[in-house]
Amino acid sequence: MSAVVKCVASPSAEKTAHKTNVARNENLAKLQAGYLFPEIARRRNAHIAKNPDAKVISLGIGDTTEPIPEVITSAMSKRSDALSTVAGYSGYGAEQGEKNLRSAIAATYYAGLGIEEEDIFVSDGAKSDISRLQVLFGSNVTMAVQDPSYPAYVDSSVILGQTGLFQKDVEKYANIEYMRCTPENGFFPDLSSVRKTDIIFFCSPNNPTGYAASREQLTKLVALEVSSFSKYAGFTGVRLGWTAIPKELHYSDGFPVAKDFNRIVCTCFNGASNIAQAGALACVSPEGIKAMHEVVGFYKENTAIIVDTFNSLGFKVYGGKNAPYVWVYFPGRSSWDVFSEILEKTHVVTTPGSGFGPGGEGFVRVSAFGHGENVLEACRRFKELYK
Amino acid sequence: MSAVVKCVASPSAEKTAHKTNVARNENLAKLQAGYLFPEIARRRNAHIAKNPDAKVISLGIGDTTEPIPEVITSAMSKRSDALSTVAGYSGYGAEQGEKNLRSAIAATYYAGLGIEEEDIFVSDGAKSDISRLQVLFGSNVTMAVQDPSYPAYVDSSVILGQTGLFQKDVEKYANIEYMRCTPENGFFPDLSSVRKTDIIFFCSPNNPTGYAASREQLTKLVALEVSSFSKYAGFTGVRLGWTAIPKELHYSDGFPVAKDFNRIVCTCFNGASNIAQAGALACVSPEGIKAMHEVVGFYKENTAIIVDTFNSLGFKVYGGKNAPYVWVYFPGRSSWDVFSEILEKTHVVTTPGSGFGPGGEGFVRVSAFGHGENVLEACRRFKELYK
Repeated sequence: MSAVVKCVASPSAEKTAHKTNVARNENLAKLQAGYLFPEIARRRNAHIAKNPDAKVISLGIGDTTEPIPEVITSAMSKRSDALSTVAGYSGYGAEQGEKNLRSAIAATYYAGLGIEEEDIFVSDGAKSDISRLQVLFGSNVTMAVQDPSYPAYVDSSVILGQTGLFQKDVEKYANIEYMRCTPENGFFPDLSSVRKTDIIFFCSPNNPTGYAASREQLTKLVALEVSSFSKYAGFTGVRLGWTAIPKELHYSDGFPVAKDFNRIVCTCFNGASNIAQAGALACVSPEGIKAMHEVVGFYKENTAIIVDTFNSLGFKVYGGKNAPYVWVYFPGRSSWDVFSEILEKTHVVTTPGSGFGPGGEGFVRVSAFGHGENVLEACRRFKELYK
Repeated sequence: MSAVVKCVASPSAEKTAHKTNVARNENLAKLQAGYLFPEIARRRNAHIAKNPDAKVISLGIGDTTEPIPEVITSAMSKRSDALSTVAGYSGYGAEQGEKNLRSAIAATYYAGLGIEEEDIFVSDGAKSDISRLQVLFGSNVTMAVQDPSYPAYVDSSVILGQTGLFQKDVEKYANIEYMRCTPENGFFPDLSSVRKTDIIFFCSPNNPTGYAASREQLTKLVALEVSSFSKYAGFTGVRLGWTAIPKELHYSDGFPVAKDFNRIVCTCFNGASNIAQAGALACVSPEGIKAMHEVVGFYKENTAIIVDTFNSLGFKVYGGKNAPYVWVYFPGRSSWDVFSEILEKTHVVTTPGSGFGPGGEGFVRVSAFGHGENVLEACRRFKELYK
């Protein structure tokens, strides 16, 4: 038996040449070249090359920095070890996730809301699930997105063919409704002025603005939800999330949305890693929840320090109350210019707001994910620069 | 800070009603209801309910049963434990996989073939990558598939809108080229009689026929490859695979395929679990490769036992030489009838060949994934039934 199962896609029957006869997917050609985070990484690396002795601090990409509580990692190492035993080995799990985890997530986060075990689809994280939702809805739907917002909603919509071309003059893709979220409207879109679309991708707490919508606001909008343990438990590398779809949610022809999503999950995914699932189950145990809240509390302290720093320097600062992102306003300036100024003068990496959509122009996002001493040092440098 | 990042898709702006105005994706409506493996599970469960005392043996779904070698699981438990320490913690990894793993996979499986670290995209398994490839190619390509073959190739093509409706009379979707693979053509399609398509999904060793193509045959077909450790290392639950795309492979307009796939990976995926990646790195260490081959050797013994059993009963048997699947021919009979006969009379679960496409009619797939004593007992019962 050849040990590796090889499933092969070939662009053309009998060719070995490198240039194929296959046309490039025209939707991918619509995407703009500069994906935000690689561009930031490129500028960061160039800065380091130019300033090899600088102590660069990254408050750019929203990546967790604190260790995962031991009550959670030990559940994962135990599961790993068990896989080498006859009694503890398991192969394919259910594509939708392990029964006890689905049930625990439903009980922990949706108690009293009518969401049950079978409504929870465990996944390898929110980004994958967003893309699976786009495949679910297909090319013939219209979508709306917060402006600014995390790029994956818009880009996955472009890839699936839901949009027209990118309009350089307005920095928007045709056929996407950009719901402007600004200090003026309290970062919640005026729904009466928004064109009605089939889908709204709504991120709360918003990335990048750090704005957390109220229960009343969310009730107006939300029928299904994608979540993850990435920021909550430091699972950005472990990868574990979920999507909740109430069984009562139907398409216009009466067909249940969850039934089609289940088919997508079974066809396009083979379940989250069983080790990550063991970790997630520990996350929602009483000890796990307590331990996660302690880590979250630490990041909240970082956030408060960053907010206080910019406030003390006279900046208007948004977000950062129920979110790990601080959204700092530099009226009349270009986000990329401010990003460069901060990088060059303080060696701190932030994220330019315009990278999240035209509504982010004039803002810079400062992430609270960082070791305490780095956040303090970055704030000292901000004070020096903007005093 | 609300601890869970919630990214919400809502089907309509202000509704709370359950029936939305959103139309169902018409491509999902094309899919046939009976996905093969859930249907088998349903019949298995009905059989158990009717025969509560029967000792049911499953040689149906191709799921690994043997523990993962300790050299591999200990790498995963060490990585899990390290995540609770400041020095060992890591957050987001590269979407394409960890550098050392990409490099080790290239060196282990593609030495001398010009495939390097940056050509390897690490994933959570082949099924997810097949679906990402379909998203890459989009709706406007034509595809060919072996008949019979694993259902995910055809179903993902239907979901992406590459096909027409299911034609009940021939049991095929319109606009897919089904490449018949039978004993008559040695299970390799006659490429001169196959309609030219943009993509060919070619699985070797084939699931379900167990046919492994020769190097010469593969050279005719293969420009890029999807692989996984699922069967090789018992990672069906751990989830770790990869896709190799040579940087020289270009679309007809000269754009590199790998560059678009990289964009898909960055937009629709956030990397495989770092713990699973630690396991994969151990897989391709000298000790890991040796340990994996021992487990594969065990499954090969199972396969030989199953092949010998059916041969001794006078059946024509295919596959099973370089694959964990044995493809048994029951001329003139319906696959589902044979499946039912075997289940009812021997309490052994197999897989009906017709579930893999019309070319599988008259065959039953017997999987060699099972504990040794179960395979022996199943073979004793086969001998009793068909003596």
